[in-house]
Amino acid sequence: MSQPTAKRPLTTLQRSTKKKVTVRLKNEVVYKGKIDNVDSYMNLIMTDAEELQDGRVIANYGRAILRGNNVLFIKLENEL
Amino acid sequence: MSQPTAKRPLTTLQRSTKKKVTVRLKNEVVYKGKIDNVDSYMNLIMTDAEELQDGRVIANYGRAILRGNNVLFIKLENEL
Amino acid sequence: MSQPTAKRPLTTLQRSTKKKVTVRLKNEVVYKGKIDNVDSYMNLIMTDAEELQDGRVIANYGRAILRGNNVLFIKLENEL
Amino acid sequence: MSQPTAKRPLTTLQRSTKKKVTVRLKNEVVYKGKIDNVDSYMNLIMTDAEELQDGRVIANYGRAILRGNNVLFIKLENEL
Amino acid sequence: MSQPTAKRPLTTLQRSTKKKVTVRLKNEVVYKGKIDNVDSYMNLIMTDAEELQDGRVIANYGRAILRGNNVLFIKLENEL
Amino acid sequence: MSQPTAKRPLTTLQRSTKKKVTVRLKNEVVYKGKIDNVDSYMNLIMTDAEELQDGRVIANYGRAILRGNNVLFIKLENEL
Amino acid sequence: MSQPTAKRPLTTLQRSTKKKVTVRLKNEVVYKGKIDNVDSYMNLIMTDAEELQDGRVIANYGRAILRGNNVLFIKLENEL
Repeated sequence: MSQPTAKRPLTTLQRSTKKKVTVRLKNEVVYKGKIDNVDSYMNLIMTDAEELQDGRVIANYGRAILRGNNVLFIKLENEL
Repeated sequence: MSQPTAKRPLTTLQRSTKKKVTVRLKNEVVYKGKIDNVDSYMNLIMTDAEELQDGRVIANYGRAILRGNNVLFIKLENEL
Repeated sequence: MSQPTAKRPLTTLQRSTKKKVTVRLKNEVVYKGKIDNVDSYMNLIMTDAEELQDGRVIANYGRAILRGNNVLFIKLENEL
Repeated sequence: MSQPTAKRPLTTLQRSTKKKVTVRLKNEVVYKGKIDNVDSYMNLIMTDAEELQDGRVIANYGRAILRGNNVLFIKLENEL
Repeated sequence: MSQPTAKRPLTTLQRSTKKKVTVRLKNEVVYKGKIDNVDSYMNLIMTDAEELQDGRVIANYGRAILRGNNVLFIKLENEL
Repeated sequence: MSQPTAKRPLTTLQRSTKKKVTVRLKNEVVYKGKIDNVDSYMNLIMTDAEELQDGRVIANYGRAILRGNNVLFIKLENEL
Repeated sequence: MSQPTAKRPLTTLQRSTKKKVTVRLKNEVVYKGKIDNVDSYMNLIMTDAEELQDGRVIANYGRAILRGNNVLFIKLENEL
């Protein structure tokens, strides 16, 4: 039951750079794209992002910054 | 009435790695899965998580990060 | 009018370990159970807890962690 | 226009121990009782407290802890 | 365009002791009275205060403590 | 593309003393007047201020203190 | 998969001075304009800004300061 691979949440995010994620904000809007960077407030830079509302893409973002205090959760995709 | 096993809440969470938990967020969404890690803000990494709304599974997550400030409570399951 | 027994609120909680309490959260849900531990954010571990909504028990918890920032008040029970 | 008796708000509360107060929380619920203690977050211990909603007593508390961040105002009663 | 009399907001409040003010809280309730004291969180002690809702006096307070984080604005009255 | 005139937001506000501004608060109320002073929390003293709701003046303030945490944005007027 | 160009979110914003951005606030209002400056709270000075509601321009701002805690996201435009 050793945990050699367990990382703190922010460390895990910082190591997820270039990976695909799904971010849901408190206002229930969802962003899918790649994490470009993240800081200790969980502020995120996302690239090649889609904004979804009720499952439909309503906007595209080359690069966007999401403020961490509005993040509800971040799903890490494509973990192989 | 000694308390040899009483742990602070965050310590208890940090020792619950790999255990099954149910997390309810402020927006009333529920996640069931295993805690992979937690930090002092109560940010959580969950693995093999199900998202439930009104008791029905509406999504599955291989790995997700929940932001601590939205956590309402965490039920520790399977305590033997 | 000396106050030999007056304790700060968090100290009082920390000395209430194993006592029965009723906790009401901001979302108006009520938990009844025993305090197992508490930290300076008022994060609580409760054991043998019942969740009540409109006075009816809707769930039971062997052990649950409540996030302090959602606590509205804590009633200390069974004070003899 | 000297102010020999002017005290900071928290100091005033801390010196109001055993005095009767009326506390209104952000959710518009009102508590009447005695302050037993208070800390710098305005967390309060109240004793012999009544909970009022729309002016009617709906519960009694031997001792309750109110979390300071939900306090709207505190009326100091019985100042002679 | 020199500013010999410009004071920081909290300093201005602290020098407004005994002056009449109107305080509006986030819940849209208004208090009129005198500032007795204020701290750096903008927690206020008001004396001889009236509580107004929709312009009508609905309560009187000999002395009340308003929690600063709920303050929307403070109008300084009677500035001669 | 040098930025000799770029100032940090709070510095810009502090240098806007005596200038006319329009401040919108989170509750959608608008204040027009002059900034008298500002601190690092964005608490503002405004003088000769009008309060507008839906574009109509509903009150006048000789001097008012707005709490910074409720500020949505501040439009700097009369920049010549 | 080296990341020579990955910058922290706030650094990225601070290097985006004079670039066009779209800022959405928590109240769902959108501002389009140029970033003039930003601080560590994500407080922003925007110049030549338009305010949009439901996609229509409802106001123009020569210069405006947006408070960081209300920012939902910032889309970086015109990245060539």
